[in-house]
Amino acid sequence: MTSPVEMDIKKESRNYLDHISLDCVVFGFHSNQLKVLVLHMKKTGEWVLPGGFVYEDESIEVAANRVLKVRTGLDQIFLRQFNVFSDPQRSNRNPTVADLLMSGQDHPEASWFNQRFISVGFYALVEYSQVQPQPDELSDICEWVNLDKIGKLMMDHNAILNKALETLRLQLTFQPIGYNLLPEKFTMSELRKLYETIFGKELDRRNFQRKMLAYDILSRLDEVRQGVAHKSPGLYKFNLESYQKALDEGLNGKW
Amino acid sequence: MTSPVEMDIKKESRNYLDHISLDCVVFGFHSNQLKVLVLHMKKTGEWVLPGGFVYEDESIEVAANRVLKVRTGLDQIFLRQFNVFSDPQRSNRNPTVADLLMSGQDHPEASWFNQRFISVGFYALVEYSQVQPQPDELSDICEWVNLDKIGKLMMDHNAILNKALETLRLQLTFQPIGYNLLPEKFTMSELRKLYETIFGKELDRRNFQRKMLAYDILSRLDEVRQGVAHKSPGLYKFNLESYQKALDEGLNGKW
Repeated sequence: MTSPVEMDIKKESRNYLDHISLDCVVFGFHSNQLKVLVLHMKKTGEWVLPGGFVYEDESIEVAANRVLKVRTGLDQIFLRQFNVFSDPQRSNRNPTVADLLMSGQDHPEASWFNQRFISVGFYALVEYSQVQPQPDELSDICEWVNLDKIGKLMMDHNAILNKALETLRLQLTFQPIGYNLLPEKFTMSELRKLYETIFGKELDRRNFQRKMLAYDILSRLDEVRQGVAHKSPGLYKFNLESYQKALDEGLNGKW
Repeated sequence: MTSPVEMDIKKESRNYLDHISLDCVVFGFHSNQLKVLVLHMKKTGEWVLPGGFVYEDESIEVAANRVLKVRTGLDQIFLRQFNVFSDPQRSNRNPTVADLLMSGQDHPEASWFNQRFISVGFYALVEYSQVQPQPDELSDICEWVNLDKIGKLMMDHNAILNKALETLRLQLTFQPIGYNLLPEKFTMSELRKLYETIFGKELDRRNFQRKMLAYDILSRLDEVRQGVAHKSPGLYKFNLESYQKALDEGLNGKW
């Protein structure tokens, strides 16, 4: 099988490894909505998560960072492996992926796309305003879609997205979140909205504030949000030292 | 490259996928010690974690369960993916793995072992007394070794073990542990020893008991441990309903 060597913006004479792919669930937060970055395939009209393959001489983390740099323009991304998707049937489709994507017959790379891929899932948390979405060679749109507006995605990409969300939700029970998703200064209400969109439910305003302050990862600033109707809400930022400690040791501290 | 088709107890005419392997960190608990299952390679004298490859028609989870069934005799194992190890240099060795393992010139499978493998790490928690360790075709010993007695392992297997431990330690800050490691009935002191060996440090007896009881996942039994000097300690078992709830939602409950 011939692996496609020039499917990236940088033309390289390297080959991709057989059987290994990666898919990324990129979360952003804007206007109190959790959003996911998706691409629209030219040939099939399907929506997909950003993804790619691994060169023979790179690690899967390097590959994921390379893929996301091309899709978002960002260099330093908060990126975590969360699961490997390896159902032997996950890429069996009719018509085949290669038929659809490469429009076929005399494309030497077509058969490469028809092999079985085991995909490593990553999730990324990015600051929405800094992302410049870029389609890849096979797609004509790359854009943010509100989590609750995501429809049917290609192959098992809905399952990949759901597993990423499940991982984030569990993570919220023991680790802080927000540093990579919110602007530097934010209100307690904006932080609560972030949690609400991840959990998909409303949270009690007072309980949330009490619990969050008890974790001791926020610094209250001497500023208020300007231009808001009624009472101007106070601004917070994360205390990065205690935030990092909570990431390492869990929100409840050491045993 | 020819993939080895008959490297398992069941002779199969299936091929393994190129480039994908799996490694398992199997934890057991006995005599107040956390133990890890390791194999001793016949040809190289090296110690390794139990591992294997993935057949063309199976998922990585099915492969991991198959490998562990052969190594431990156990069918239903608590098994979790925790990380993918993909450093391109991880399997570069001199002499090559194939030279060492297959003692090689005319062995058709030798070159297959020399390719680059991306390995999916799993950790397993098993009840020590039920395991019957079995070496594989390339090893002459399969046995439990105390965590603090594990020396240099092959390739990056020490890093795989350390990452599994780090995962377990973080998990203890938000999820219960013990159900798959302890016998059905246990004392508070036995449960604390389990936590102590995972953390690698002593924990305060009173604090531990207070914290653990507050999680409401234990049922106190109307029995004591017999044949113990001095005061006979009370026995507990896990309340499986609340234990499962704590696994799903985290020990601190829902937001």
